[in-house]
Amino acid sequence: MKTLIIVSHPEIENSQTQQFLYQGSKLDNVTWNHVEEINEINIKQEQQLLTDADRIIFQFPLYWYSAPSGLKNWEDTVLTRNFIYGDKSFPLEDKEFGLVVTTGLPLKDYQKGAAENYSLDELMTPFRAIADKAKMKILPIFTVQQFWYKTELMQMELLIDYQRYLTQDMPDSLANKQIWFEKKLQEMSLDSDTADERSVELILDNFLNRTEELEQLNDTLSMIKENEED
Amino acid sequence: MKTLIIVSHPEIENSQTQQFLYQGSKLDNVTWNHVEEINEINIKQEQQLLTDADRIIFQFPLYWYSAPSGLKNWEDTVLTRNFIYGDKSFPLEDKEFGLVVTTGLPLKDYQKGAAENYSLDELMTPFRAIADKAKMKILPIFTVQQFWYKTELMQMELLIDYQRYLTQDMPDSLANKQIWFEKKLQEMSLDSDTADERSVELILDNFLNRTEELEQLNDTLSMIKENEED
Repeated sequence: MKTLIIVSHPEIENSQTQQFLYQGSKLDNVTWNHVEEINEINIKQEQQLLTDADRIIFQFPLYWYSAPSGLKNWEDTVLTRNFIYGDKSFPLEDKEFGLVVTTGLPLKDYQKGAAENYSLDELMTPFRAIADKAKMKILPIFTVQQFWYKTELMQMELLIDYQRYLTQDMPDSLANKQIWFEKKLQEMSLDSDTADERSVELILDNFLNRTEELEQLNDTLSMIKENEED
Repeated sequence: MKTLIIVSHPEIENSQTQQFLYQGSKLDNVTWNHVEEINEINIKQEQQLLTDADRIIFQFPLYWYSAPSGLKNWEDTVLTRNFIYGDKSFPLEDKEFGLVVTTGLPLKDYQKGAAENYSLDELMTPFRAIADKAKMKILPIFTVQQFWYKTELMQMELLIDYQRYLTQDMPDSLANKQIWFEKKLQEMSLDSDTADERSVELILDNFLNRTEELEQLNDTLSMIKENEED
């Protein structure tokens, strides 16, 4: 599976969050495409990137309840009518569409009655409308809230969740998580020289927890089945 | 009352709709500010325009379910945190905030189950969120749908409705309409040389219809009152 991240941030080199996510995105079959770095948008080239991908992600900090203008400029230029839905052809049909939104405020502020009064889901409607028009499959939003308040451990957890959002099969079910962690552990054991001990530990923790959960689930299911057979 | 229109359209000289609205906007106390024409945004100057206005309107064609990137760039530059809500001061508090949105599709397409599946109200959420944050009063959206299909008469009606949206007291009640049409007729009779006969006719029609409506309403109210007294 190929993943394309369309990143928008006008001062990305000063953004700790984006730099951190950039490090996390260095995975096989993941392409990082920072729109503000493009000097002159080559429409065909950008459209090719989209066509080649199986999962397309727009990633940006929330600026006035939307993406920075750089992303809108990219959209207005690259997403020509014919490329999205013209001539009854849908080049992006069935690809997955995700959003990675970083916020300075905690997520709980984005709801009726809270400081922001609108949910991220409501605010992201224009992006979902594009994905709908292109007949893409919409993934839940991945939110990075208040990155600078996070401890190192929280950051490591965020990194793994982010990598899962980029590369794990969806929906984000227990079974799909399990498969992803297994594969990740295999890769790391093959490549033990470069593996960060911390992240191996975290992944192992996560993996073992999931395994326990799965076992418990299996036990419960067996019990129910036995009872039913009584 | 002063009205400021922040207009965004990357090719405004080729837009029949925007040129038409531009002609309509030539009224006393109405400022037309086309953001794509600004070479280098002077933040203080733009903020002063906003501070001076009583009614602020964002006007644009719907590009991918939002405004063109030029407007977002203007927002991201001009609407600094402190200007909108910082330091517990709200420079735009109680001003009115309106949206003039032009669409290539009919308005009925913007609803669940129709071609676009999202209402303009939903799509405009990010703009309303800004207005809310600034403690502004939100006006209903003024939509211009499929301008090129309109007959000359429909265009004249649109022009008058647009001018009312720019300058009439809100809410858009019968009483406020009445006052606006009376004032407009007075102005036109004073300035009869330049008055377009067609628009005088239309305004008179509108005015007389309203007067009839008002009279009927009065009659009905009187009848109800009489019956109650029986």
